[in-house]
Amino acid sequence: MKNIAVMVGSQSPTSVNRKLARTLEKLAQGKLRFHYLDIASLPHYDNDLWSNPPQSVTTLKHTVEAADGVLIAMPEYNRSFPGVIKNALDWASRPFGQSSWMDKPAALIGATPGTTGTAAGQGHLRSVLPVYGFVVMGQPEVYFNMRPGLITDELEITDETTAAFLNGWVDRFSAWVERHGTVAETAIAAE
Amino acid sequence: MKNIAVMVGSQSPTSVNRKLARTLEKLAQGKLRFHYLDIASLPHYDNDLWSNPPQSVTTLKHTVEAADGVLIAMPEYNRSFPGVIKNALDWASRPFGQSSWMDKPAALIGATPGTTGTAAGQGHLRSVLPVYGFVVMGQPEVYFNMRPGLITDELEITDETTAAFLNGWVDRFSAWVERHGTVAETAIAAE
Amino acid sequence: MKNIAVMVGSQSPTSVNRKLARTLEKLAQGKLRFHYLDIASLPHYDNDLWSNPPQSVTTLKHTVEAADGVLIAMPEYNRSFPGVIKNALDWASRPFGQSSWMDKPAALIGATPGTTGTAAGQGHLRSVLPVYGFVVMGQPEVYFNMRPGLITDELEITDETTAAFLNGWVDRFSAWVERHGTVAETAIAAE
Amino acid sequence: MKNIAVMVGSQSPTSVNRKLARTLEKLAQGKLRFHYLDIASLPHYDNDLWSNPPQSVTTLKHTVEAADGVLIAMPEYNRSFPGVIKNALDWASRPFGQSSWMDKPAALIGATPGTTGTAAGQGHLRSVLPVYGFVVMGQPEVYFNMRPGLITDELEITDETTAAFLNGWVDRFSAWVERHGTVAETAIAAE
Repeated sequence: MKNIAVMVGSQSPTSVNRKLARTLEKLAQGKLRFHYLDIASLPHYDNDLWSNPPQSVTTLKHTVEAADGVLIAMPEYNRSFPGVIKNALDWASRPFGQSSWMDKPAALIGATPGTTGTAAGQGHLRSVLPVYGFVVMGQPEVYFNMRPGLITDELEITDETTAAFLNGWVDRFSAWVERHGTVAETAIAAE
Repeated sequence: MKNIAVMVGSQSPTSVNRKLARTLEKLAQGKLRFHYLDIASLPHYDNDLWSNPPQSVTTLKHTVEAADGVLIAMPEYNRSFPGVIKNALDWASRPFGQSSWMDKPAALIGATPGTTGTAAGQGHLRSVLPVYGFVVMGQPEVYFNMRPGLITDELEITDETTAAFLNGWVDRFSAWVERHGTVAETAIAAE
Repeated sequence: MKNIAVMVGSQSPTSVNRKLARTLEKLAQGKLRFHYLDIASLPHYDNDLWSNPPQSVTTLKHTVEAADGVLIAMPEYNRSFPGVIKNALDWASRPFGQSSWMDKPAALIGATPGTTGTAAGQGHLRSVLPVYGFVVMGQPEVYFNMRPGLITDELEITDETTAAFLNGWVDRFSAWVERHGTVAETAIAAE
Repeated sequence: MKNIAVMVGSQSPTSVNRKLARTLEKLAQGKLRFHYLDIASLPHYDNDLWSNPPQSVTTLKHTVEAADGVLIAMPEYNRSFPGVIKNALDWASRPFGQSSWMDKPAALIGATPGTTGTAAGQGHLRSVLPVYGFVVMGQPEVYFNMRPGLITDELEITDETTAAFLNGWVDRFSAWVERHGTVAETAIAAE
């Protein structure tokens, strides 16, 4: 059972990205435990706050550090990612040399009501994920079109192809976290 | 005399980017008037707030719409831009179809205490600037190494080459705003 | 009548991007004249060749310099642009200080048989277009789904909404070239 | 002893990136064996050639597939990567579903005569590396300033800090290839 720190880029109660994350959480029961990060309560990044960091920042870092992997589910804003995601990434990457993300297996997914934007938005964030020290799972990409009725309010997937794709993704991500995360700890323990 | 809406990506009182922006403001006296946008008081972007938008958002949009051009001066965070900049860009780009940035001449600059990061950070933001509708000035790029003593607290530049470069940039940016901004209004007026 | 240097990122005779470019050319008759650049015959960029540049390079630079604007129509390869496009951009950007692209109004479009990739591919190229000195038209974006039958072999558009969108794009691009190109020359002439 | 497929983005005999790669090769003796890919002889990507692929393409794919990891050392062109690198990445990523890069541990480095460009150029390529299926090592980044005399023609490093940094990089990359490559095969074998 692996612990996954999850960031959702939208705070809307009707967010299609939150719904996608919760659907994956349900499919992954018994394999992955999701911990949703409260990134909306973080202040805008301010280096001067490290002398006495806000509770929201220290909680963020602790949750990430206790996790075996990271999942980012986000909307696209203007062919890029929401500022709130970047803000959270930067907070937990500091203080310098103490990045909470270092060596964490990670995946990036996105849902849209339509079909276009998320590929561009994800591409833009993907650029910097390795900089944080993430071990990024690049395939399969998830550009998810959350069309009405595809997933019910009870998180039942009504389409077989979609169910197979999302189950396959869960298997791949679980294996990614297992392979690229645990091994590291073993290696460290063995030194 | 052109009005420039200015975003500084760091809120630190000792920000080298703020110092760079203020130096340019001084060099541009009589040509450009700088209006510093208060982006730190914006909430994280939330689409649900448009039913009753916060004062910080409406002020942002009004200031931008009244400006002839836009200047972004920002630090680099993890080879990218600060979330607070993206957040402000997204707020003023909405509601859909009412982007305050549309057709504004714009430039992007950055300063660092060292020499590396700002080129990568600017490159990452540059990717999406045209999406907002900005008419982006691509050259000359400003990857400014704010080494100690180069610019005094009174904003005097102590090095001739640097002074010439920054004066040249001001001339180019003024011409860019003149050429790519005013003409548009004339064209609109003539229709 | 404005001259447009056109780069198509695929050399395939059945390229959907070439078809899209030719459709726009047809819609723009009387306003824009398209000149297709032969980028496939360029060697891989090699700085050492400038001592005696190949004919393909000098022809490229001359055609671009004689143009009033630039259009790039390209497929997406692995969420990015084809190397052949970057290669051509780099050739004509040199020798240092003699970029043929400088101050050219430009637009970027892309077609796919499906719906996803081009937004990501275009986003990746858009990042660097301002660096070359292009005056990039950011809106409207063209992520064109060339579904079978939408445009005939005779370049007739069979769908009204699509025809209206592409005609609108031609008007916007023509105006962009007019405004951001000609004006510059006038301004220069007036100095 | 791990086999590393190496791409150098410049074909110049005096390339600082080739010199950097060869320096690392020397430091890694006994741990890593470098195989330099001939990417300059590849044609521009053309999907129609797969019916009878050129020798340069099949050799590329075979060499990559036999390797335990991949190293890219490249110059920066216009704040991005050379087309010849993208072209090689795309060739070996096809035919669809048969990417030679899939699951290969990989690192990206760059050298410049000056100090600025490589960070931006690497950032631009890093964006798409996970798409190819690479397991990208994000840290430490190598933005190498190949100043005159720093490394002799016999590949001796004349500066202790630099030697320590490059030796540290070799250790980290070797460990990365070991951990993220071999383990996978073991895991597969154990299934």
